[in-house]
Amino acid sequence: MEGAESDRAFVVRFAPDGRSVSVRPRTTILEASREAGISIDAVCGGEGKCGRCKVKPQGRYSAPKSSFVSAEEAAAGIVLACEAIVEGDLTVEVLPRSLVGRHQILTKSIEDIPRPLSPWVRKEYLRLPKATIWDNVADLERLWRGLGIGGLPMPLEALRGLPNAIRTGNWQVTITLSNADSLDEITRVEPGDKSAELLGIAVDIGTTTVVADLVDLLDGTVIATASDYNHQVSRGEDVIARMMFSEEGGAEELMTLVRETINGLIERLVHEGSRRLGGSITDQDIVSVSIAGNTIMTHFYAGLPTKHLRLEPYVPVAYHTGYLKASELNLKANSAARVLFSPSRAGYVGGDVIADVLSSGMHLSSKLTLLIDVGTNGEIVLGRKDWMVSCSCSAGPAFEGGEVSCGMRAMDGAIDKIRVDEDLSTTYHVLGEKAPVGICGSGLIDLVAEMYCRGIIDRKARIQDLRIDRIRTSESGREYVVEWKDRLGAGAVSDLAINDADLQNLLRTKAAIYGACSTLLRKMGENLSAVSSIVIAGGFGYHLDIARAIMIGMFPDVPQEKYRYIGNGSLGGARMALLSAKKRKEMNEIFNKMTYLELSVDNDFYSEFSSSLFIPHTDIGKFPSAPLERACEGAKD
Amino acid sequence: MEGAESDRAFVVRFAPDGRSVSVRPRTTILEASREAGISIDAVCGGEGKCGRCKVKPQGRYSAPKSSFVSAEEAAAGIVLACEAIVEGDLTVEVLPRSLVGRHQILTKSIEDIPRPLSPWVRKEYLRLPKATIWDNVADLERLWRGLGIGGLPMPLEALRGLPNAIRTGNWQVTITLSNADSLDEITRVEPGDKSAELLGIAVDIGTTTVVADLVDLLDGTVIATASDYNHQVSRGEDVIARMMFSEEGGAEELMTLVRETINGLIERLVHEGSRRLGGSITDQDIVSVSIAGNTIMTHFYAGLPTKHLRLEPYVPVAYHTGYLKASELNLKANSAARVLFSPSRAGYVGGDVIADVLSSGMHLSSKLTLLIDVGTNGEIVLGRKDWMVSCSCSAGPAFEGGEVSCGMRAMDGAIDKIRVDEDLSTTYHVLGEKAPVGICGSGLIDLVAEMYCRGIIDRKARIQDLRIDRIRTSESGREYVVEWKDRLGAGAVSDLAINDADLQNLLRTKAAIYGACSTLLRKMGENLSAVSSIVIAGGFGYHLDIARAIMIGMFPDVPQEKYRYIGNGSLGGARMALLSAKKRKEMNEIFNKMTYLELSVDNDFYSEFSSSLFIPHTDIGKFPSAPLERACEGAKD
Repeated sequence: MEGAESDRAFVVRFAPDGRSVSVRPRTTILEASREAGISIDAVCGGEGKCGRCKVKPQGRYSAPKSSFVSAEEAAAGIVLACEAIVEGDLTVEVLPRSLVGRHQILTKSIEDIPRPLSPWVRKEYLRLPKATIWDNVADLERLWRGLGIGGLPMPLEALRGLPNAIRTGNWQVTITLSNADSLDEITRVEPGDKSAELLGIAVDIGTTTVVADLVDLLDGTVIATASDYNHQVSRGEDVIARMMFSEEGGAEELMTLVRETINGLIERLVHEGSRRLGGSITDQDIVSVSIAGNTIMTHFYAGLPTKHLRLEPYVPVAYHTGYLKASELNLKANSAARVLFSPSRAGYVGGDVIADVLSSGMHLSSKLTLLIDVGTNGEIVLGRKDWMVSCSCSAGPAFEGGEVSCGMRAMDGAIDKIRVDEDLSTTYHVLGEKAPVGICGSGLIDLVAEMYCRGIIDRKARIQDLRIDRIRTSESGREYVVEWKDRLGAGAVSDLAINDADLQNLLRTKAAIYGACSTLLRKMGENLSAVSSIVIAGGFGYHLDIARAIMIGMFPDVPQEKYRYIGNGSLGGARMALLSAKKRKEMNEIFNKMTYLELSVDNDFYSEFSSSLFIPHTDIGKFPSAPLERACEGAKD
Repeated sequence: MEGAESDRAFVVRFAPDGRSVSVRPRTTILEASREAGISIDAVCGGEGKCGRCKVKPQGRYSAPKSSFVSAEEAAAGIVLACEAIVEGDLTVEVLPRSLVGRHQILTKSIEDIPRPLSPWVRKEYLRLPKATIWDNVADLERLWRGLGIGGLPMPLEALRGLPNAIRTGNWQVTITLSNADSLDEITRVEPGDKSAELLGIAVDIGTTTVVADLVDLLDGTVIATASDYNHQVSRGEDVIARMMFSEEGGAEELMTLVRETINGLIERLVHEGSRRLGGSITDQDIVSVSIAGNTIMTHFYAGLPTKHLRLEPYVPVAYHTGYLKASELNLKANSAARVLFSPSRAGYVGGDVIADVLSSGMHLSSKLTLLIDVGTNGEIVLGRKDWMVSCSCSAGPAFEGGEVSCGMRAMDGAIDKIRVDEDLSTTYHVLGEKAPVGICGSGLIDLVAEMYCRGIIDRKARIQDLRIDRIRTSESGREYVVEWKDRLGAGAVSDLAINDADLQNLLRTKAAIYGACSTLLRKMGENLSAVSSIVIAGGFGYHLDIARAIMIGMFPDVPQEKYRYIGNGSLGGARMALLSAKKRKEMNEIFNKMTYLELSVDNDFYSEFSSSLFIPHTDIGKFPSAPLERACEGAKD
């Protein structure tokens, strides 16, 4: 039985949370972690190309030498989970920075209940005459007669419950009608009078984060909000990595992961909603769902292939999917509930951006507005009532914890605000009031601005040879130590430092955003001075210090009072679509009037991008209000 | 391990086909036969009430004494399968009459291609411009542009295959559109030009038999026809027994059995269609399905509860179900194919009757027509262009092999024509040219007529004490031996005889049909003389000798040239609906103009029925053309 012996399973236990899993030989630690339901960061999708999945195993394993693991780390027994092969029972310590945990997610958005309320579902309470031998028409036809509308179809699954509902309710029922656009059907029948309750869900599917609202469709209020990491995160941090993973056979898995994420949120919302409403609601009570997300996420969610989105000429399967049925999406809601997706404008300008615009109201204004949504990707919209142009720049995950060695997402342990003092030491704030583990996006913007003010980096973001302890040479060029190892969170094996490579990634990201804004203005023959309002949307913006973002040349230099922060505009827009026929109409109008500009083949963008690869910009004149010294002083808290 | 010992499985082997199955103790032989996939007749659903499931087991079993098993049979080791408990390994011989096998099923129907052809699906071949970076609209929107129609929805499953179809076809695709009434969607996309092929299926779901046509929707021809027993037959012969079975937890099983039956037929049709078309077609090529069936069968098929159909006031869940999706029905066709059911008019006047009418054309005639469909139930329609009234009489399965000890369905081994000679011996024809096993419906009508002519029975169908060998006393009153045991098929354990109880069942059945016809005429104030045409529909009619049916008082006594036989009108009507928008409209008009008369609470019917419990009728004057002697002579072949 040698075959059986060699196929013996090994037990892998993960610390600190103690979950164990039994795996077959030749499994990697990353694969084992997935089996165990532990989300280890793997930006590259587990190909050994990102170096994010560091773990410290104890027991029998083998791992090749990796350029991502420093000599110091290797000595401490640290390896990449995606490369380490399980060869016996193991205990694996997942380094805090490698662990994708709960984090500070943006859920708030501005209060905006569109009136009059006109969701695409409504209820009607009907008292039907009881069937007799002299009047024994079919139950469905009796409903039609009670409604005064004949011929309304009813999905088979709902129809199956009809006879029982009618009789349980003693010939008094509440029916839910879905009718909007070409949609016209009976979604549900409940016994008795249930007309005082009508619930829907609005969802924002982000690459990193998924947020959902449970909405009372009768008064427009949000009953509860829940958010979670997109469970796909452990299969690649950005959309490109995930699309590659999908094409290599992972499509089904990615679909399942994001569906699980959303269904998990709905479960929490239903539970919380029951508590708050003081009654008992179930997922069957959810009869209407509105979703906004970037094009790639909604493709994954619907199970649509993304290959042609990834490859030139970047063609989505569909912009509009119409009202899909919850059952088609395995959505934890009434199976006949209809799901409306905010339409995508292009492969890289999705329904989330259309929803941002809807939420911002810029499509109703006669004044020029610039909208910037910085998430895992950056999307920019310029326009007003009569026209709109959009583009996407691959800002990359530099501000969300990717591509920067000391970067992490805005979760507990992340430095979100930082100052560099005169002696070049640092003062900072850590989310969750813990010892620091890494630096999130807003902290990185602060850090770049401060390092520049203090002369640690030059206009090209290169670290200067200042001959102090905190500046030293590393494998990735010079590095500046933000905090010493002994003051970091448990498990730290080296100092928290930012290096030349990190800074170049940050510089490219900020240059892409600024370059995209400039390109849109230039294409449309507009000047910054004509822009009456700059709208910042997305989770990133919430922790952001606008003054410092201007200081490093990421956002245009206009008076700060012109900046307006709308929070999660994507979720806000999805909620508006859920609640209002007028907003659904506007959503389609935004889609129709919005032009998409493909920056990847645009020479103007390339030139604007290159000019922005300086702090703040090649042309200092573009940032008149922020001469460096004064800016640094003024930005201090 | 006593528990394990007592739970030891026993092997039950069925003869003659040799299939074996392993079952747990306390299983009945009927249950074991179901496990083995052998269809044993069980009209009552396995409750020991019909006596149809006779088997001859060898080995360890226990069985109570049954009144259905004669002393002679009991001595031969015959028991009821539903009552016999397996107590050890067994070999079970299934008596030929208990076995539900392949049989002669009516598949032919009159040629009737409605022109112009207008199925609810059509194909369009599109040459799309190839996507470029300058024109990279989504695939779905590119289709819409090519079609010149925007906003057409596409079911998610079809949408998933869109990108691949477009690119495989090198930007040339054929799309299938479903559009009729409120239905308007893209059902399918195929690469290349496939516009020369468009296929649909028409199905008649009978209580006993299911028949399906593979139809070429471009020229209206039937490519292939297939038929099979409704696999539900082994769970009860009539609709009442099946509804009881359903309510006792068998609903899912009944749904599955009829779905299996239809899917099996489609598989055969696809195979045969491939052969005849000289190409290769698959179930994915079936994009349109039209179904007619009685109300109870279509409820079972759709998985709708039938409880309220069985109990007064006999309320169906729905008359019209709209265009359901093949995927909702697990139908072996393109998942986006739409399935149209002919609407039911009442619990006992189903879509099959509406389809009969459509097929007969009586709804277009200004002359009065009487339509009689005798299947497992009898349905009657009286009317013309401007009005129509329908009713159902529980004719019962007497003419389909049920409720008559020597009865069987029209399958191989059944006597379908019979004469009683002067010496009271018999001459007969057997289907399949075999030794006889039993007598099917047309044979029973012949037999009753002949026995009456020869004075074997009186006007009340009571067997006379003629003191010949063939007439003797049995447990069910007197019996007349149709054929002696030694001339019967293998396995016969007794003579083939008809007894007083059988004759009373036949009398009640014929009285129900005639009574229903009379009641409709009386209610509408019409006389038989006003009826210009009598249409006979259904499988039963195919083997029927109209003259003898008149002779026993089952059908009205009008000149035989007024009788018209349309064969399987239900299938014909379903095919018409598949092919023609005009016929679909007519189908709904028939539904709207048809009144339903509930006979079960009708005093007139009770009186007409009672008067018909004679041969031919209490009122001999109603059958003037058929004085007995002449009729007998005239009916001889």
